[in-house]
Amino acid sequence: MKFATLPGTTADGRLVLVSRDLRFALDAAPIAATLIDALERWDDVAPQLQARYDDLNAGRAADAFAFDPAVCRAPLPRSPQWCDGSAFLNHGRLMERAFNTPPIPDFDTIPVMYQGASDDFLGPSQDVPLPDEAEGIDFEGEFGVVVGGVPMGVPAERALDYVRLIVQINDWSLRGFGPREMKTGFGFLQAKPSTSFAPVAVTPDELGSNWRDGRVQLRLHVEWNNRWFGHPSGSEMNFSFADLIAHAARTRRLSAGTVVGSGTVSNASRSAGSACIAERRVIEIVDEGRAKTAFMRFGDRVRMAARDADGTQPFGVIDQQVVCAGVSHVDETPR
Amino acid sequence: MKFATLPGTTADGRLVLVSRDLRFALDAAPIAATLIDALERWDDVAPQLQARYDDLNAGRAADAFAFDPAVCRAPLPRSPQWCDGSAFLNHGRLMERAFNTPPIPDFDTIPVMYQGASDDFLGPSQDVPLPDEAEGIDFEGEFGVVVGGVPMGVPAERALDYVRLIVQINDWSLRGFGPREMKTGFGFLQAKPSTSFAPVAVTPDELGSNWRDGRVQLRLHVEWNNRWFGHPSGSEMNFSFADLIAHAARTRRLSAGTVVGSGTVSNASRSAGSACIAERRVIEIVDEGRAKTAFMRFGDRVRMAARDADGTQPFGVIDQQVVCAGVSHVDETPR
Repeated sequence: MKFATLPGTTADGRLVLVSRDLRFALDAAPIAATLIDALERWDDVAPQLQARYDDLNAGRAADAFAFDPAVCRAPLPRSPQWCDGSAFLNHGRLMERAFNTPPIPDFDTIPVMYQGASDDFLGPSQDVPLPDEAEGIDFEGEFGVVVGGVPMGVPAERALDYVRLIVQINDWSLRGFGPREMKTGFGFLQAKPSTSFAPVAVTPDELGSNWRDGRVQLRLHVEWNNRWFGHPSGSEMNFSFADLIAHAARTRRLSAGTVVGSGTVSNASRSAGSACIAERRVIEIVDEGRAKTAFMRFGDRVRMAARDADGTQPFGVIDQQVVCAGVSHVDETPR
Repeated sequence: MKFATLPGTTADGRLVLVSRDLRFALDAAPIAATLIDALERWDDVAPQLQARYDDLNAGRAADAFAFDPAVCRAPLPRSPQWCDGSAFLNHGRLMERAFNTPPIPDFDTIPVMYQGASDDFLGPSQDVPLPDEAEGIDFEGEFGVVVGGVPMGVPAERALDYVRLIVQINDWSLRGFGPREMKTGFGFLQAKPSTSFAPVAVTPDELGSNWRDGRVQLRLHVEWNNRWFGHPSGSEMNFSFADLIAHAARTRRLSAGTVVGSGTVSNASRSAGSACIAERRVIEIVDEGRAKTAFMRFGDRVRMAARDADGTQPFGVIDQQVVCAGVSHVDETPR
């Protein structure tokens, strides 16, 4: 199944099923009004949603309407937890050089993961309001999974049983804060503004053999201001999503709707390019002695879409502009 | 006003108003069924809630019932964000010695803060299921504030306008994970299982002059297995809650219901004792050459209550037992 969330009467939006070709949609209500509602009652609602989805794809849904990804919110506009790994070791090793931080202990054997804010995710075409161009505005192209409720201590061998949906993510980062926050040991907070999502969340079966070994075996195509930036593949993920879920759940439960991220997709081959600017910059330093590529400016756009061999984009496209968080973006009224 | 949350039909529980003396309660519905609902519509509902609260305290509420803190859930059983500072520098400096971690840069001038999980808070008398006694089970007594929606970039000078409620917190910690996670730079994740809350959340006016300068000017009395452990005062907080809210909101919005924590309450005077075991252990190392106090065992209890000069406990009492997260605590059914 494929799901998206349109603006609705609450912060959780309005859940729609999206046809496999992303051309049509239909309301998931009254089966489930929101995606978080569906995830909390998954076993009850999944068969009914599947029947509606089958009708939609077969052209049998009289209430189908044209799907417009440009008005989508994030599939989950807010979620219970957002735990983001750094499962591509190639990226992590380059970032240690970029940030000049000490080697991470046990980096090859224990996943690293930070807890992010999950109350204000952005949709695929929403502007990205940020306070200051001087803070090193960067994108990070990632894959992620949305889980059902996971018990504390789930072993990696059983963790994939809890994967309900697969998503595509841009984990916006402010590099002006990241190295300092890493050195505090308390992790990223100001370095991580709201995270963005591609419009469509898919059940694992939608990816066919491209969901394999707990990894999304697709290239993530990244363009910055309409110029190619990279197309690294999710296949080189060193820790699988099974490993990441087990890591996140070791000492806590994960509520249904928790998002677990891969960290920046990164490949050893230089020809794959990068899915974040910081990584390209450190490669420039290594290869050419200095970073030539500057971080983003207000008005810049980044576009990201995973593609399979046929050119199909199963999650749709993230295409966002960075804007100044001026007064129009700040609600001055105490709420 | 004073609020508590009883078990309800959803994960957000059922909101009650609690009388000033904590003896009686009444349902806040139909004004607001849950605390998160009240916080999201605060300006609309606060006057009506205040009128009901006044009736309750005056003995005019016919539907009042006896308040039983033992059955309470956390005031917010789940919340949009949980941002926990380390605003008592005395604690932070001792913990650097305890963990043998490098000095935190700019520790005196920029608050440190980690993002915690906020989807599964524990109530004041709920058992605390943890996987392994060997992981260094510790408590951390703290104060916190619950904010309304805070705009990105709010200055500290205006941040206290957004404080809706004040809470008392036990931020459970697993010291076996903390130092390693700090050294990754990604911050605490496995080191921080579910956080616990005292039963009653109070509006700032309830504390009178004990809410002053953005600090809770009360001693937090901590007993471990019925023995005194400490009674440090919130007055020595080096950064105020205004500083902490502004820090948290620098590059993001905070949704209504976000909890911002003080970090472990800690005083320079040794006679105040400590609000966590790790701090006592490092004092033992400094004073006596070795840590004598072991971490908690399954079956241990910790009790925490802030008290004013009259002995009044405005938040009620946290009194919890640590238990083994055996099969009875693990939901094995994929949800």
